[in-house]
This record gives sequence, C-alpha cells and structure tokens, in this order.
Amino acid sequence: MSKATFYHAGCPVCQDAEKNMLGFLDQSKVDVEIVDFNDDSSRVSEAESAGVKSVPALVLDGQPYHINYGASMEDVKNG
Amino acid sequence: MSKATFYHAGCPVCQDAEKNMLGFLDQSKVDVEIVDFNDDSSRVSEAESAGVKSVPALVLDGQPYHINYGASMEDVKNG
Repeated sequence: MSKATFYHAGCPVCQDAEKNMLGFLDQSKVDVEIVDFNDDSSRVSEAESAGVKSVPALVLDGQPYHINYGASMEDVKNG
Repeated sequence: MSKATFYHAGCPVCQDAEKNMLGFLDQSKVDVEIVDFNDDSSRVSEAESAGVKSVPALVLDGQPYHINYGASMEDVKNG
C-alpha cells in the first residue's frame, strides 16, 4: 500500500483540488491522509522536508506533487 | 465515468508524474487518456482551451490541474 499525504491550507485552490481530484485516487492502492495546516501547523516542517514548496500538494511515497498553486509555504508559515 | 486527460511533453517532470502518479487514479471512476504533445501537437489548442498553462497537467472533467512544473505551454509550442 502506498501512502499519500495531501497538504493544504484551506485556500480556494486547495479546496478545489481536495474536492475534485483526491476522490479519484484508488483507495485500494493508496492510503490518503489530509493535513490542513490551519488545524495542525506542527506538520509544516514535515511537509517542507518532503519538498513541499506550496499548497495544495500531494506527497506520494515521499515525492512531492504540487497541484496548481494556492499559496507558498512562506505564506502558510506567516499565516 | 469521469474523463481525465494527462498532457505532457516528454520532460523529466512529466515522465515522473506519469510514472508515479497516474497509476494511482481509480480506473473504475475515471477514464485516463495520455497525450504527448511531441506525438500530437494538434492537441495543444484543446489543452489551452481547458486552461492548461504548463505541463504536466491533468484535465479532470474539464478542470486543469497542473502537477509540478516541467515546461510552459509557450515552451511546448516553440518546440
């Protein structure tokens, strides 16, 4: 089973990607966790370590995939 | 059944997204077509009409999702 973490920050672009894209991932192949930095800012460093530069982003088996552009991680950290 | 078109241009970022991300889409929910502009440049205008600004990009039920950044559509058109 692969592991995916979807990082977002509540922005409109994030919400769109979560609503319209995540549901198409095959849950028999990948375990998807959704992390909203507004709820859990302690996960920021983990995302940055995985190479996340902006949100929304999907880290899939350790590789970051930025999906469109909602906000930079700097914006996220500056809240 | 939803429809997804993955547009790419053979770039390393495109190949990575195709190899490591597309396979996680649930083929029972979405019919995925892969378009390589190197093979079919006639599809460029269709992609631009859907809002694709760079490759790789996945157009999912008409909405463009840019996945990381390989090359701009201008780069693609200029070959």
